Amino acid sequence: IDCIKALMSLIGIFQKYASKDQDTDHLNKNELKELLQKEFPGLLNVSKLFSVMDALDQDKDGQVDIQEYFTTVCTLGIIYYEILGACPKK
Amino acid sequence: IDCIKALMSLIGIFQKYASKDQDTDHLNKNELKELLQKEFPGLLNVSKLFSVMDALDQDKDGQVDIQEYFTTVCTLGIIYYEILGACPKK
Repeated sequence: IDCIKALMSLIGIFQKYASKDQDTDHLNKNELKELLQKEFPGLLNVSKLFSVMDALDQDKDGQVDIQEYFTTVCTLGIIYYEILGACPKK
Repeated sequence: IDCIKALMSLIGIFQKYASKDQDTDHLNKNELKELLQKEFPGLLNVSKLFSVMDALDQDKDGQVDIQEYFTTVCTLGIIYYEILGACPKK
């Protein structure tokens, strides 16, 4: 799919999990936990999840906003790229 | 589509344009220009493109790597989110 559709999908995923409570522009701890567990199954165990939350929550407001979310998702993208890069294209 | 597929699409797009020359891990000016023009039609005019290149090229090596690319794509994602946010969901 193209760049814009990929970005729209990433935004849609943020909105899907962020809108479980009144504050639809932020992910709280539980919403973030659910997003990471469902979207990246097996990537992180629960105890690591909350340390990830602290790392993501750059402004320490206990919530993750779209900017912190995109920073995270891009970091995961770079990790995937490096993993892919490690195995030469067939 | 899910998060991982969206990330894989973004990686695939980077690789598609970065592999037009020998250096498949970087976008040179022409590759970046082609990516931005094709993936974000109408978003930028050509003269702006090269100022975007300078802004993206954080380590000033005249190339854009995967990290600089993801930083850009995420910035565009946040801009789209804010534009979407400005118009209430129907």
